[in-house]
Amino acid sequence: MEHANRAAVVLLSGGLDSATCLALARKAGFSVHTLAFDYGQRHRAELHAAERIAQAQGAASHRVIRLDLGSIGGSALTDTSLAVPENGGEGIPITYVPARNTVFLSLALGLAEVLDARAIYIGVNAVDYSGYPDCRPAFVDAFRALAAVATKAGVEGHGPLIETPLLTLSKADIIHTGSKLGVDYSLTVSCYQADDQGRACGRCDSCRLRRAGFEEAGVPDPTRYQA
Amino acid sequence: MEHANRAAVVLLSGGLDSATCLALARKAGFSVHTLAFDYGQRHRAELHAAERIAQAQGAASHRVIRLDLGSIGGSALTDTSLAVPENGGEGIPITYVPARNTVFLSLALGLAEVLDARAIYIGVNAVDYSGYPDCRPAFVDAFRALAAVATKAGVEGHGPLIETPLLTLSKADIIHTGSKLGVDYSLTVSCYQADDQGRACGRCDSCRLRRAGFEEAGVPDPTRYQA
Repeated sequence: MEHANRAAVVLLSGGLDSATCLALARKAGFSVHTLAFDYGQRHRAELHAAERIAQAQGAASHRVIRLDLGSIGGSALTDTSLAVPENGGEGIPITYVPARNTVFLSLALGLAEVLDARAIYIGVNAVDYSGYPDCRPAFVDAFRALAAVATKAGVEGHGPLIETPLLTLSKADIIHTGSKLGVDYSLTVSCYQADDQGRACGRCDSCRLRRAGFEEAGVPDPTRYQA
Repeated sequence: MEHANRAAVVLLSGGLDSATCLALARKAGFSVHTLAFDYGQRHRAELHAAERIAQAQGAASHRVIRLDLGSIGGSALTDTSLAVPENGGEGIPITYVPARNTVFLSLALGLAEVLDARAIYIGVNAVDYSGYPDCRPAFVDAFRALAAVATKAGVEGHGPLIETPLLTLSKADIIHTGSKLGVDYSLTVSCYQADDQGRACGRCDSCRLRRAGFEEAGVPDPTRYQA
């Protein structure tokens, strides 16, 4: 069914996955409104990256919502007293931010309602997902059901679709997809502990997944690493 | 089933409903951790009220999460360019904040996970609910289903219960309940446009519902009104 409004909200972290997601939303013909969160990350590099990516891909608007997740605590990504792990490991890692995707999707839902957007794009991935519970299909399905009843738009029958085009892709598939769409991955920052210039550590779980993805995809890795 | 941890997260707005909810959580034997949001409200009085209520009722901790909902726009409660209605009206009112309860419950879910809390209390009410979609039983049920799959605790089978003890109570019933539990309603602020001292306008939808509730309950109204 055609929707009069071709707006979509795209959650943009500044990383590789969400940059690819944005390109897919643009390819689908949407006017995209990107949304990033300043949630007490250890470094600002990913917020700068999100802004550059939004601009490079022609987003209609870019917003940064300030959100003080540090007051909740419990994650190495926002609590500087906890160390970022560098050696993989079993189970749900300490870099997990409690309820992060639930919170981010909820705020995207609010923005989608204000814009009367047709879709929300989120780059969750259940393949290379590092054990985060809120990256699984069961989570996405539950959020879809919630979105249908949570807002004025949902109740009126024109709530946004929750689009997760990367859900079952490998990191290499994602890189292949984005490369074909002209995504400039040198603008993206995936590292959990990037420096002020956005250069990656090359050692954290996120860096290791990313590097292996470029290798497997056979695409030159444009990541800028710390010396 | 008994849960080792008797912690509960209580969403506290500073209003009459959530103050009653807090009293019910305390009565149920929980150690309560209250959570309020600084989301760009027109006035600070409700945040001050939330803090006083948490203290008066012996909360184990009180947190205020800063959350910039103003950047989303679309509500008279956060957008000062929109007027607050004073004459009721049909449908979903302009004071509706897009996806507010979804966002607030999501953040409560994150805190509940960090605390390994057994329950989240939210004072939503489907009787005097002013037409907000995220105050209906269908919304609460959908959020319960989401909570069961969204977090580490949920996946491990000890996610928090979502408690909505006010869901089907009238405003008068709520006031009766709280009065029996010793809730000091003079500390609470329900008005959409309270002044700096927390005094109510007496004219907005929220004031009218509250005043009628005290009348119907036959409880003296301790609300401080503007001159």
